[in-house]
Amino acid sequence: MTGRASRKPNAESGRVSGEPLTAAALDQLFRDARTYNKFLPREVPDDLLHELVDLMKLGPTSANCSPARILFAKSEAAKARLKPHLSEGNRDKTMLAPVCAIIGYDLAFYEHLPRLFPHTNAKSWFEGKDEKIRETAFRNGTLQAAYLIMAARALALDCGPMTGFDPAGVDEAFFAGTTVRSNILCNLGYGDGASLKPRSPRFAFDEIAEII
Amino acid sequence: MTGRASRKPNAESGRVSGEPLTAAALDQLFRDARTYNKFLPREVPDDLLHELVDLMKLGPTSANCSPARILFAKSEAAKARLKPHLSEGNRDKTMLAPVCAIIGYDLAFYEHLPRLFPHTNAKSWFEGKDEKIRETAFRNGTLQAAYLIMAARALALDCGPMTGFDPAGVDEAFFAGTTVRSNILCNLGYGDGASLKPRSPRFAFDEIAEII
Repeated sequence: MTGRASRKPNAESGRVSGEPLTAAALDQLFRDARTYNKFLPREVPDDLLHELVDLMKLGPTSANCSPARILFAKSEAAKARLKPHLSEGNRDKTMLAPVCAIIGYDLAFYEHLPRLFPHTNAKSWFEGKDEKIRETAFRNGTLQAAYLIMAARALALDCGPMTGFDPAGVDEAFFAGTTVRSNILCNLGYGDGASLKPRSPRFAFDEIAEII
Repeated sequence: MTGRASRKPNAESGRVSGEPLTAAALDQLFRDARTYNKFLPREVPDDLLHELVDLMKLGPTSANCSPARILFAKSEAAKARLKPHLSEGNRDKTMLAPVCAIIGYDLAFYEHLPRLFPHTNAKSWFEGKDEKIRETAFRNGTLQAAYLIMAARALALDCGPMTGFDPAGVDEAFFAGTTVRSNILCNLGYGDGASLKPRSPRFAFDEIAEII
């Protein structure tokens, strides 16, 4: 491929330009990665979930607002509490998954901006502006859900993200009395490749993108 | 790290379990990756933008709905058309960036579901349900924006994502007469490391996550 970065120190900045990841890494992140409905009976260690969060939280959010909040439902009790709020097709597979990450966003995220974005009064951009708060929390919490998916794949975990659940029910069961709202669920584990069907089709470049 | 995947064929599925990416790859994707306001004067080739889209489009969306639509503003004319709709702090840096990806979502995404998700009548889940359409397009288009950021980093590009712009103005300038709505802008290029300031703080695990 022409025009690519090479690992040479850049004279102007001192920065070492990176190279693209290897083909195997791109496969793991994108080309071979799939949504799994079935996982191998193999535990996801707690320290790996810590590592996952410590990566995903580094992804960019607007004004570093970082609204995502995550409950990793790993115990049978936690998964049973989730079960009645899942759409029927998501129930059994989630009960059998090693972990289900309940990914929400905190509508009070802006209270933390004096710490997260200290060089200006970013909190004042949001106070009293409910629609802007909701949109910012939803957009950035969703970006962070995608960072979690990509970080999981980078750590050799497989994902089964879902939006087929009753958000009000999940909020009542897990976030009652808080300002957190559920957004996306993501089963995590080591996927059972035997359960995969062929990947659904994707658009061609020209159908969804243009260089102008 | 205990309990990690090893590259052994799995007897049950035939699948070869992956290993975590190397520390250098995790650095490139997350730990050393930063939001850049300034880029080196170095072109981003068109074929790299094609490769970028061909990776990001593989990321998961609900019912494979794939609502993201991307205009890569690379010409001076396209960037000049964008300029008046950027918030002041985003103007000059975007004019100087090699490319600005205008990432939108198509509110008519469900028209494509018979092709993208052919095994059921998913189109009927959305027809006539404006709020569900809007929420699904926004959520999944935002997931895809994050996939684009991660794919760009995987290809050794640097990103400068932004939401500081007038969406109505961008829609009028670039998506008039279509069902596409702008969501996130993302400058792309080879970042100038000399322009970086220290990374803003992040939450600790226990402040945003819990294993239950």
